[in-house]
Amino acid sequence: PEKLWGKVVDVAKKMKKLGEDDPRRIIHSLKVGLALTLVSLFYYIRPLYDGFGVNAIWAVLTVTLVFEFSVGATLGKGLNRMLATLSAGALGVGVHSLATLSGDQIGQAIVIGFFVFLTASTVTFVRFIPAMKARYDYGLMIFILTFCLLSISSYREDEVLEMAHQRLTTIIIGCSIAIVICICICPVWIGVNLHNLEATNMEKLGNFLEGFGGEYFNIPGGPSMDESFLQGYKSILTSKDTEEAMANLARWELWHYRFGFRHPWKQYLKIGSLSRQCAYKVDALNSYLSSKIQTPNEFQSKIQEPCTKICTESGKALKELASELKKMTQPTLVNRHITNSKIAAENLKSLLNTTCLCENDSLQEIIPTAAIALILMEIVPCIEKISEA
Amino acid sequence: PEKLWGKVVDVAKKMKKLGEDDPRRIIHSLKVGLALTLVSLFYYIRPLYDGFGVNAIWAVLTVTLVFEFSVGATLGKGLNRMLATLSAGALGVGVHSLATLSGDQIGQAIVIGFFVFLTASTVTFVRFIPAMKARYDYGLMIFILTFCLLSISSYREDEVLEMAHQRLTTIIIGCSIAIVICICICPVWIGVNLHNLEATNMEKLGNFLEGFGGEYFNIPGGPSMDESFLQGYKSILTSKDTEEAMANLARWELWHYRFGFRHPWKQYLKIGSLSRQCAYKVDALNSYLSSKIQTPNEFQSKIQEPCTKICTESGKALKELASELKKMTQPTLVNRHITNSKIAAENLKSLLNTTCLCENDSLQEIIPTAAIALILMEIVPCIEKISEA
Repeated sequence: PEKLWGKVVDVAKKMKKLGEDDPRRIIHSLKVGLALTLVSLFYYIRPLYDGFGVNAIWAVLTVTLVFEFSVGATLGKGLNRMLATLSAGALGVGVHSLATLSGDQIGQAIVIGFFVFLTASTVTFVRFIPAMKARYDYGLMIFILTFCLLSISSYREDEVLEMAHQRLTTIIIGCSIAIVICICICPVWIGVNLHNLEATNMEKLGNFLEGFGGEYFNIPGGPSMDESFLQGYKSILTSKDTEEAMANLARWELWHYRFGFRHPWKQYLKIGSLSRQCAYKVDALNSYLSSKIQTPNEFQSKIQEPCTKICTESGKALKELASELKKMTQPTLVNRHITNSKIAAENLKSLLNTTCLCENDSLQEIIPTAAIALILMEIVPCIEKISEA
Repeated sequence: PEKLWGKVVDVAKKMKKLGEDDPRRIIHSLKVGLALTLVSLFYYIRPLYDGFGVNAIWAVLTVTLVFEFSVGATLGKGLNRMLATLSAGALGVGVHSLATLSGDQIGQAIVIGFFVFLTASTVTFVRFIPAMKARYDYGLMIFILTFCLLSISSYREDEVLEMAHQRLTTIIIGCSIAIVICICICPVWIGVNLHNLEATNMEKLGNFLEGFGGEYFNIPGGPSMDESFLQGYKSILTSKDTEEAMANLARWELWHYRFGFRHPWKQYLKIGSLSRQCAYKVDALNSYLSSKIQTPNEFQSKIQEPCTKICTESGKALKELASELKKMTQPTLVNRHITNSKIAAENLKSLLNTTCLCENDSLQEIIPTAAIALILMEIVPCIEKISEA
């Protein structure tokens, strides 16, 4: 029993940490509870219950399924669900009247069965289309669901129109409650998240570059407080899927006080892929850092100055870009940093051309760094161009 | 109207291509249709309908929601759903009896509302725990759903136990139909997919390395049929999320004729992350390829031989590993290739130490290649170790 208690304490600690890491999670949980309690009023209050009856259960169902962490996801699911229910309901009613034309029970069953099979198969196949999958996957699933429910149950019940109408109303009510609560109480805008993600990614890269120069050349007294900044970039390497999912959801948040209508979400993906390319280069730099050998200092000290210059300047440029992106203003100081680092890169190049060296080992260490720094140089202005969007 | 027709033809072509790319998609669509038609028999056949009544609709609902493309996903969702319904049903009945104790209508509503709020909030919060999210996310959602449905509707209906029992039965029937059809008719094992993905990833890397030597040193008559192999590795760079999701789902496929019980899925993630690291290096190599300058041939020709040797041998080793992984046999020839490439790397190293050169530009080009090849060398035996698992 003591072991069990230890485990419980352990789990509780983890949950506490989870809540502290992002208090929005706790708020979200409370919001879900609130929405469900609100919806259940349809059952408790007699006049409301008389209006909808057992179909009110669909409102409960809808709230549970539609309520997501971010506004974008909730809106997307809610709109998907309402549209899908509407169209599937219309189709279901159509199939029902077609089936009643065919007369007897067995004929009806065959007609309905045929249409169920046909619709389910085609819509499932449509779900594989990448463009549909990204934005309407949930809606298509609901479409199958509603269509099947309606057309199958129409076989036993005759008031299909009435039923479809009630179901649609309750689902719309459920969606509205979910969306209103999601937006009004401490909303989590996924667009803002994406925006901040890109900015912090750039900042991480900037931090790495700024610190890299000092770390590689062992400059004492440099800003080498701790080494965590050297690992920060790693999360960027694999961020592609997350970013795409976020951009897809962000598109649902059509209006937002900070971004306005038709914010160019695609630009974020571009920035994302560029910072990812940048991160690959940084990864290569990092591997040189870990495989560093004791090299003759003669050559190192020669190229040290332009190399660190490139690193700090491009790092500063990236950080500047990140903070400007956060504030949504035109970058101003960035250009200066970029030209500075370009000058430093030119210096390094000419230095390499004029020096004649035989310490191959040291070259083996140094030159890749320089070469990669040069490539970085090509990327920075590219990012700059896009950030102006 | 002609424009519209053109669009329709366009979409049809795209769908045809989608089907041809992976015929399993068409089969999957037909399977979904079949499962739904089967389930709707509960409505058509009178004795079955008399047994379950309107609750049979839950079987339809379950099939639509649970049926997924791969066996792993279907099993995971099905088991999640059944477990969640069972536990939530038990809890719901408990809350119902507690509520009836409190006597009057208003008291009941308060008790039920309180528990709904409490459960929904806590379970929503639990969904944020990463370990839970990975495997039980769907189950937790269904738990909230079922609990709310049951306890709320228990306010108006009195035969809660009967209702809970029927619902559970229909859901189990729905899940079973979905799982049986999913497994019996052309199953798509996600474990096999993951297995093949890792193997082809390794193969792509091997292809790149084999071709890279010839490409970089412009060897005429080499195996430079087309350049597509140079781009193949790019998909590996961002494969992390996909792999993790697949490994999570693969864990549900407990038994499988090829893998047996307790197949080490975590090893796949390790192999995946190692090949990803390998791909980062390859990306760095590729960037040297694109930024290639016309360099003095003297030095190039000197190091050409060991460099190409490293490339081809390590490429062969990787391809060998991939084919052995596909066949699930112990690698045999791999060790020979690895030792060969190690010898070549040693040669290159000593060559670099003994040669004295002044063409910095050419060094700037060549040495990174060699350095990265050395790093690759460290990775290959690492992969080998893991593939023996």
